[in-house]
Amino acid sequence: MYRKNERLVDGLEEDQLTSYRAWLQYRSIGDEGYQKKVLSYFSSIHLDCNRDVIIDRALEEIQLAMFEMVGFSPNISQNGGSFVINVDSNLAKEGFQVKSTDSGLTLTGGSSRAVLYGIFHILREIQSETPLNTMDCYEAPKNAFRMINHWDDMNGDVERGYAGQSFFYDDYQFIKDRARIHDYARLLSSVGINALTINNVNVHQVESHLITDKYLDEVKQTSDIFNQYGITMYLSINYASPIEFGGLDTADPLDERVIQFWKQTVQHVYKRVPQLGGFLVKADSENRPGPFTYDRNHAEGANMLADALAPFGGIVIWRCFVYNCKQDWRDRKTDRARAAYDHFMPLDGQFKDNVVLQIKNGPMDFQVREPVSPLIGGLEKTNQFLEFQIAQEYLGQQRHLVYLIPQWKEVLAFDTQAKGEGTQVKDIVSGDVFDQSISGIVAVSNVGNDYNWTGHTMAQLNLYGYGRLIWNPDLSAEAIALEWTKQTFGRDHHVVDHIMQMVMPSWEIYENYTSPLGIGWMVNVSHHYGPNIDGYEYMAWGTYHFADRDGIGVDRTIETGTGYAGQYHPVNRDVYNALESCPDELLLFFHHVPYTHQLKSGKTVIQHIYDTHFKGVEQVEAMIDDWQQLKNKVDERRFKDVSERLDHQLYMAKEWRDIINTYFYRKSGIDDQHKRTIY
Amino acid sequence: MYRKNERLVDGLEEDQLTSYRAWLQYRSIGDEGYQKKVLSYFSSIHLDCNRDVIIDRALEEIQLAMFEMVGFSPNISQNGGSFVINVDSNLAKEGFQVKSTDSGLTLTGGSSRAVLYGIFHILREIQSETPLNTMDCYEAPKNAFRMINHWDDMNGDVERGYAGQSFFYDDYQFIKDRARIHDYARLLSSVGINALTINNVNVHQVESHLITDKYLDEVKQTSDIFNQYGITMYLSINYASPIEFGGLDTADPLDERVIQFWKQTVQHVYKRVPQLGGFLVKADSENRPGPFTYDRNHAEGANMLADALAPFGGIVIWRCFVYNCKQDWRDRKTDRARAAYDHFMPLDGQFKDNVVLQIKNGPMDFQVREPVSPLIGGLEKTNQFLEFQIAQEYLGQQRHLVYLIPQWKEVLAFDTQAKGEGTQVKDIVSGDVFDQSISGIVAVSNVGNDYNWTGHTMAQLNLYGYGRLIWNPDLSAEAIALEWTKQTFGRDHHVVDHIMQMVMPSWEIYENYTSPLGIGWMVNVSHHYGPNIDGYEYMAWGTYHFADRDGIGVDRTIETGTGYAGQYHPVNRDVYNALESCPDELLLFFHHVPYTHQLKSGKTVIQHIYDTHFKGVEQVEAMIDDWQQLKNKVDERRFKDVSERLDHQLYMAKEWRDIINTYFYRKSGIDDQHKRTIY
Repeated sequence: MYRKNERLVDGLEEDQLTSYRAWLQYRSIGDEGYQKKVLSYFSSIHLDCNRDVIIDRALEEIQLAMFEMVGFSPNISQNGGSFVINVDSNLAKEGFQVKSTDSGLTLTGGSSRAVLYGIFHILREIQSETPLNTMDCYEAPKNAFRMINHWDDMNGDVERGYAGQSFFYDDYQFIKDRARIHDYARLLSSVGINALTINNVNVHQVESHLITDKYLDEVKQTSDIFNQYGITMYLSINYASPIEFGGLDTADPLDERVIQFWKQTVQHVYKRVPQLGGFLVKADSENRPGPFTYDRNHAEGANMLADALAPFGGIVIWRCFVYNCKQDWRDRKTDRARAAYDHFMPLDGQFKDNVVLQIKNGPMDFQVREPVSPLIGGLEKTNQFLEFQIAQEYLGQQRHLVYLIPQWKEVLAFDTQAKGEGTQVKDIVSGDVFDQSISGIVAVSNVGNDYNWTGHTMAQLNLYGYGRLIWNPDLSAEAIALEWTKQTFGRDHHVVDHIMQMVMPSWEIYENYTSPLGIGWMVNVSHHYGPNIDGYEYMAWGTYHFADRDGIGVDRTIETGTGYAGQYHPVNRDVYNALESCPDELLLFFHHVPYTHQLKSGKTVIQHIYDTHFKGVEQVEAMIDDWQQLKNKVDERRFKDVSERLDHQLYMAKEWRDIINTYFYRKSGIDDQHKRTIY
Repeated sequence: MYRKNERLVDGLEEDQLTSYRAWLQYRSIGDEGYQKKVLSYFSSIHLDCNRDVIIDRALEEIQLAMFEMVGFSPNISQNGGSFVINVDSNLAKEGFQVKSTDSGLTLTGGSSRAVLYGIFHILREIQSETPLNTMDCYEAPKNAFRMINHWDDMNGDVERGYAGQSFFYDDYQFIKDRARIHDYARLLSSVGINALTINNVNVHQVESHLITDKYLDEVKQTSDIFNQYGITMYLSINYASPIEFGGLDTADPLDERVIQFWKQTVQHVYKRVPQLGGFLVKADSENRPGPFTYDRNHAEGANMLADALAPFGGIVIWRCFVYNCKQDWRDRKTDRARAAYDHFMPLDGQFKDNVVLQIKNGPMDFQVREPVSPLIGGLEKTNQFLEFQIAQEYLGQQRHLVYLIPQWKEVLAFDTQAKGEGTQVKDIVSGDVFDQSISGIVAVSNVGNDYNWTGHTMAQLNLYGYGRLIWNPDLSAEAIALEWTKQTFGRDHHVVDHIMQMVMPSWEIYENYTSPLGIGWMVNVSHHYGPNIDGYEYMAWGTYHFADRDGIGVDRTIETGTGYAGQYHPVNRDVYNALESCPDELLLFFHHVPYTHQLKSGKTVIQHIYDTHFKGVEQVEAMIDDWQQLKNKVDERRFKDVSERLDHQLYMAKEWRDIINTYFYRKSGIDDQHKRTIY
């Protein structure tokens, strides 16, 4: 992050700085009493542990923050001070404890990394002006792995990137200037992220060479930067590497030459980059190569890599996003929603200890609304990561304000019934229920080289919130938004209130003007932006709504449909399978119903479609009103950025409203009860 | 064209040569009697006129052809010979006469260019083995301007190009090797093309500089090549050039500085390229700049350029493809079909003598089926070109076999009623009806750097046929296809018959499996390939079908619709305006009708949709059967090329059939009378 008297990060203009700082603003403390307290509590630092690079970063952070907030950088000493830092290996490795007295604080971490988290915690509290003598706490992350996946390509593009180009690569080279990566690592660490991949899961020809001498020097340099912030780096690899650059004619995981290739390759990689966490693999998915080519299953495919990585403590992260992407749209039997479960459930227990399956939150692909993947709660003997997408691919592409935490909260709170009532997703993915050796949560990054990281200033909240939520899934969406708003825009009640009013209902608003009742995919093909109701209806992607003149929805029941509902544990299975009990918001995901079907809300499906779409636009208008209240209360650059995007959001919301309403009116012929304009 | 003992054109492989030669095969003559006759008739050439570069090319051609067909290149002498060539300026400038005796021929041209045309005519006849003593004829082109437009960009792309990249440009430079351009000019000249533009009508930044010293040397070189084959070259220009590189802040056609800019620019261009024909301009169209920006009309815009070009004999070709491409789809009043007429009719008589308006054949944009533009027959005091598109943008993109001449024949035969019954399009665009000083036909090219020029081997026929048809619009589509087939594939009856069976109904077949009853635009957005019924339905391009659960079609009647029908002369107006008289094939272009509306054929609209779509696929299957009969009768390369494309055509025809049928079944709920499978 830009510091006083340092040069600006490449290409950054002075008035973009506030945006760039994101939530690490460290505003000067306005309240004189509180400022004095901080000055006294942090007048000196007593470092009661060994220094290392991570501790160095922690100290740097607090000195910077103090200078900015109270104009004074505390000294660091080994002989006493008002703020004590130490390490106690009896604590959880990533846990920290804060103890307060009337004149000072003690931060104890289970490791250097924990100390860094503790420092960011304390600074967050100070920015919220929490009284210093009430700071006592013990914090440890719920999830051991808290990961980010980048979908950056080495040509500089970011797949599903909505915030500019990659800041890792340009023109098939690592970008020489690493200042931005440092700042990024700091942002991630401040919310507890401890792992990331830096290249797209779709590993193309050039990126295959990231695990060769061509790029390993720079892989190492990049890994070192992240390590300083307590973050372990992983690489996405190409399963066809033995063919791509190994000189072999096969990538068969049971072929001895392939096994040797990977052993030697991994050995070499770890010699050069000893801190690497392991490999992420998208295999047999959307035209990526994999074990299926050789009639091997995914366990055989993953375990071979796992064996190669095991001697170095490396892990294999294996994505479950496997389905037939060349489905004939005429084939009503095949159901993409079933695919991950059908492929991976039979393999439960067959994966090695250092393999972890990465499972998207829903069975399709990060839609506005999906049920939770039945693999979660299905798999009992397999390590697993839950995968979210911070990038708003199907949720407005960072041109619409959509706060994602409420969606993710619902996923984490979902009761899978795996061990009877109360087996929530959050406790399964944390490893608590089935005691997996590797567990946690991963998400697709939403950042790029835009001056504000995320394109939409408000999309910073989703990155922030992701880190905070997976550290502690019991934090409420409100609490997270409130934390972020205060750090990002200051504590002015007026500002905070309006932003909270904008942010909190934003997912529901987006759902209102886009996709009703759990039906997805009504978007333009490929880029996935904007309404196109039949866009995916006659394609090979397994993505249909089957709307006709009488009704709409996908029959996924056991009796007459694809049987997908049967992949859930009995209670959920029955709830989803029966039209009477299926919740409104997922109705069309599980059932094909007439437009006149009456919802639990009492409305018909068609009237619900009309009502939500009219309402959604009104809600965006209200959002704009909220933001307009903040003119002159927010710096000009951020005010303008958000204003422009909100205007565009309103334009698009109207497009959505009118196209959806017209489409269904033309199909159903049923008038809006309120006689509003449908074209 | 590759000649024996010469090097191959860049990148061409030996087995691609036959494809590359297109219709100039000059096969060895099999019939011994005929061969002897040819040898005797062409044993020597008596050149009874002055030589120039065009005559040189004509002589080169006949010598080459004779060598290939009979193994003997005739001598050329000024003192007698069996084949006499002379020029008689009393003939029409581009007309030629052939007179035969029992021992020789005399070819008399109105100019060198006409001699070249005569030579190609004679060679065509010989390849069809027409008896030499029956060759007497007089031929002159119906249309004075017979033009090709290239949509090549200097980066090497061809907009709407389906046959590879440009052979004019690569990477913003002219391609150094001009061999291919020579061969192309020869192909064009062989069918009587006498004018062309070499750059896209969408003139981007780089291409704006084609009229500056940056590129003028190579423009001149290119012009010189075409001139040798009797072809005049034109350039597409950027109307905003005064701003782009003139240092001005305006392109206002009435601004004195702009007028001076163009005068000086044109003067400079003609100093460097004296043979240039003039400029082609796409102004105020699809985001291109134009006079509207300055509140000037198109006459003011075009006349300013015309004044600059007049001293050099240059002309301005001004496109009429002007419409609001940012229409709100909710707005049912605006009708893109009306736009050209509404814009240009009020200006009739206001354009200078060296301005010619270029009018697309239909009011929309080269759809499978459109009515004829009412501007043709509307404008009486304005020079005009009719514009076709040889590139199959909306007609299968040269992956589907579609013979376009039958479509163009219908256009040319359309009775506009402009001067009462019998005022056909062909007589208007030739200038015969209204006696315009500039008249003719232009078409968008379908060639690229593919080894066979046109991607689909059979698409060569459309380029050939275009030239032949506009030379003589009274040639039948059959006659043209027959000529081409014999020259391209030889005279074997078996081959000729099967190819004729494939070619002749191919437009109707394509119409059958794609767009019924004159409704267009049911294609994927931007690239325009493959079915997407709602693809353009909610966009800004003015391209709608308004299908709902009850019916489909655009009401363009005078009483209840957009009034477009009223742009025609009374007889046609009344035919189109009344549901009862509107021809089936244009019904949905003019009327919105219920699916149960009964067509003149006796079928309902919906049953017609089902029937034509099932039939279309069967017809493609029959086409494939025809082609399969020719295995070993056609060289391997061309057989394979066509086979592969036909297989793809069948795949796509099924996609079209099933998607269209399913779409309308879902909307209408009406069963197919024959209970065939609809998904």
